[in-house]
Amino acid sequence: MNNELENVEPPKSSRRSRSIAGGGGARRAERSAYQQEFSRFIDRKIPNFEILNDEAIEIIEYNAETVLEEIGVKFVDNPKALALWKDAGADVQGETVRIPRGLARKLCKTAPQRIVQHARNPDRTVEIGGKSLILAPVYGPPFVRDIDGGRRYATIADFQKFVKLGYMSKWLHHSGGTLCEPTDVAVNKRHLDMLYAHMTLSDKPFMGSVTEPSRAQDSVDMCKILFGDSFVENNTVMTSLININSPLVFDSIMMGALEVYAKSNQACVISPFIVGGAMAPVSIAGTLTQVLAEALAGIGYSQLIRKGAPVIFGAFVTSIDMNSGAPTFGTPEASKILFGAGQLARRLGLPFRSGGALCGSKLPDAQAAYESTNTLQAGLLGGVNFMLHACGWLEGGLVSSFEKFVMDADQLGVLHSIADGIDMSENGQALEAIREVGPGGHYLGCDHTQKNFKDSFWKSNLFDYKPFETWMDEGSSDTLSFASRRVNYLLSNYIKPELDPGKDEQLKEFVEKKKASQPDQLY
Amino acid sequence: MNNELENVEPPKSSRRSRSIAGGGGARRAERSAYQQEFSRFIDRKIPNFEILNDEAIEIIEYNAETVLEEIGVKFVDNPKALALWKDAGADVQGETVRIPRGLARKLCKTAPQRIVQHARNPDRTVEIGGKSLILAPVYGPPFVRDIDGGRRYATIADFQKFVKLGYMSKWLHHSGGTLCEPTDVAVNKRHLDMLYAHMTLSDKPFMGSVTEPSRAQDSVDMCKILFGDSFVENNTVMTSLININSPLVFDSIMMGALEVYAKSNQACVISPFIVGGAMAPVSIAGTLTQVLAEALAGIGYSQLIRKGAPVIFGAFVTSIDMNSGAPTFGTPEASKILFGAGQLARRLGLPFRSGGALCGSKLPDAQAAYESTNTLQAGLLGGVNFMLHACGWLEGGLVSSFEKFVMDADQLGVLHSIADGIDMSENGQALEAIREVGPGGHYLGCDHTQKNFKDSFWKSNLFDYKPFETWMDEGSSDTLSFASRRVNYLLSNYIKPELDPGKDEQLKEFVEKKKASQPDQLY
Repeated sequence: MNNELENVEPPKSSRRSRSIAGGGGARRAERSAYQQEFSRFIDRKIPNFEILNDEAIEIIEYNAETVLEEIGVKFVDNPKALALWKDAGADVQGETVRIPRGLARKLCKTAPQRIVQHARNPDRTVEIGGKSLILAPVYGPPFVRDIDGGRRYATIADFQKFVKLGYMSKWLHHSGGTLCEPTDVAVNKRHLDMLYAHMTLSDKPFMGSVTEPSRAQDSVDMCKILFGDSFVENNTVMTSLININSPLVFDSIMMGALEVYAKSNQACVISPFIVGGAMAPVSIAGTLTQVLAEALAGIGYSQLIRKGAPVIFGAFVTSIDMNSGAPTFGTPEASKILFGAGQLARRLGLPFRSGGALCGSKLPDAQAAYESTNTLQAGLLGGVNFMLHACGWLEGGLVSSFEKFVMDADQLGVLHSIADGIDMSENGQALEAIREVGPGGHYLGCDHTQKNFKDSFWKSNLFDYKPFETWMDEGSSDTLSFASRRVNYLLSNYIKPELDPGKDEQLKEFVEKKKASQPDQLY
Repeated sequence: MNNELENVEPPKSSRRSRSIAGGGGARRAERSAYQQEFSRFIDRKIPNFEILNDEAIEIIEYNAETVLEEIGVKFVDNPKALALWKDAGADVQGETVRIPRGLARKLCKTAPQRIVQHARNPDRTVEIGGKSLILAPVYGPPFVRDIDGGRRYATIADFQKFVKLGYMSKWLHHSGGTLCEPTDVAVNKRHLDMLYAHMTLSDKPFMGSVTEPSRAQDSVDMCKILFGDSFVENNTVMTSLININSPLVFDSIMMGALEVYAKSNQACVISPFIVGGAMAPVSIAGTLTQVLAEALAGIGYSQLIRKGAPVIFGAFVTSIDMNSGAPTFGTPEASKILFGAGQLARRLGLPFRSGGALCGSKLPDAQAAYESTNTLQAGLLGGVNFMLHACGWLEGGLVSSFEKFVMDADQLGVLHSIADGIDMSENGQALEAIREVGPGGHYLGCDHTQKNFKDSFWKSNLFDYKPFETWMDEGSSDTLSFASRRVNYLLSNYIKPELDPGKDEQLKEFVEKKKASQPDQLY
């Protein structure tokens, strides 16, 4: 098994890439077998798959406005939000906000169509919107799992390992946010350690904290150290995840974080979080109606806070197993909702978040891969711009899996290559090659093959392609074993990207001071 | 683990289905826990994914005609074919046939757009073409594998088990052909045993033999026993697989089988069989050009044999690992070629064959599932009408896997549900449910959920959806273990579909007589 050692192809779709990670020359020389690669974010050259026809879209859009106008949404414990909505022309009764037909859609018009999220390494800066696709890792699990340690509560040490794996994953454009919950750090302090890890162990873009408005503010303040005050004031350097409390409720904690970020011109994904049949109707069209109504209200609200605040139309929707009540992933219903929600987001001209390598499986096995691939493929073809959970998600989001992280991350290369479309240049047409080889010949040795083979076929860095006998002789390993070895291989070859020591010192000080300023909270 | 015992939902997309398998009443009563279900073939209510724009299609079509006109194709050891081509207006030099621009496309026009392939049970009859999708199992492997016996040469007993599993797989519409090579039966006789198994152990449609023209004739003759002479003369009862010897060669054995079938009005899939980079250019557009040229020539030839002969435009294309030379499956290049070839087939107005649960993995593990799902999804969205290898394929087609058969077969339900599109009826819109539940409520108990939940969500018959603790208590099984148990469960509940004993006797006699009439051939 030396697939892992063959990571030497130039990245096909990385235009600005192929840089060697920072670090001392001596260390570089020591580890010369490993060559780190980075890929630019995806800019699709393929069309989007559109499952809804115009009539269906118009029905859903009409119904969503009916929901907003007649049923309304609730902004809980948030008098300021109610006042803003009232001023904007909504009918506010108690905490219920009824939004006249057309108002929310009009408010959404000031949100940008494309968001540039800067990374501290400008080569890693991403653009979210249009035909782009940004891949970000798993978010939120309290547990981790690997082949040696089994399933256990996640720690900050696990978190740091995931940041390193994300940094080293060629096809991953984003460092993500809560890669796992570091349960060994106090609830009110762990965001500081997570942000410090993203900022120092990776140079890819990342997400901020949303669990308290004050923690969102800490995220902005740490970014000001990393990027400089005026840079953060004028640019987007974080994309953070604001979940809606479906059906139709906007709680004050999430809205508080949104308010902080919107005011600071930082991006938010505004996502209905729906287990279909529980938080939304069991039908696809009904769920899409609710998703659109919720997104319109949430995004509209972001523009009431600050016109032009960067936001992403999110849709995290799964179905439910009516026998056990468990949420299910990688299901056909989830794909259909993703396809439909993408169309609704594009009609609003907004970036779209959905998808991911989602699965319900307890193990990173065949079930996990079937389910994950269903949603990865739907995400690519359905026009997702920001794909959270693109690698590492296991057990319905309860577990971050080390092996699945590298398994999924490898498959993200498939998405890059499909998105690249079909090369119709004269070289791509290859008519001369067909002429040269002729009937009954073979192409392995022909000029065209020699010139093109290195870039022609995507290649896994993980899967086994060896002859059966070789594979047997080498121990008949399954994918999980290959993945475990790759995790260890990557972590043992990790080199920290360079960072101005002064900034590192300031960040450390900020974290220490903040931690010292308050007692630990346990939940 | 009792997922397997919960197979009680009515099949959503099966309109004529829900019949109980034949067999005595006593046996039925004995096995009342198991309820066999059948699904009608897929008729997509969703659009096709089109990766090529009009300009790209026109370039490929023009280039394919250039290939036919200037480079030509070879019909080897087949003077009669050369004469037919000459009469039709081609330029024949030795065995090379150069087809003037436009001629092959013109010949293809007499092939039907939609093929009705009859099954002996009319409820299992399929229609191949338009927006339909017929799912058929793995074809061709010399080996089988299961969790208990490992990898070994396939036998006729294995073959029979696969026929039974195919018969019992709800989402599989077709019994297929060479489910595995029964290597314990002489090469010149095994087609008889295979056909007899398809005809008696299943009532789904099946494929005929193509390894010798005489064996194709045996297949037709056995069908005449099963269906009656005049029925076979007037209807299509077999779809058989004719591979083209890419690049651009048509050998006399495959063409001989095609000639038998075309004359008898039996359907053939005419498929370029391409490992990209070896039998076609390394580029996608070049490969598509060659695929189209080969399909045009093969399908054109079928119409020279008999105008109106039913044929399917096939594309079996994979890529190659340039390090090991191994063919690779589930790759992005394969998906792109599938998408493009589908468009080319539809431009010809012909049914399209491609896709399958293809993988290179040695084991039915995560690699197998990632790879297979990539191609299953591409096949669904790319407009495939006839999908061979839809379940059971392992190790690049060297192995038929029992466990992977049921794993893939379960996932075929996902394709059905996505293909069903989005219900935009008033019930689907569910506006009253959203109104009833309102902000902060939940949908589990509402009227709409109660009325619809049984049909709303596709449900795996294999995957584990249980709570983590229950799953642990029950042995922490992985998908492979669940699948192994399902294989045993299905086989132990198998009941043979009823068949007129007279016909069975005649079929047996035919097989015995044929076997006795010739010595065994070992290769």
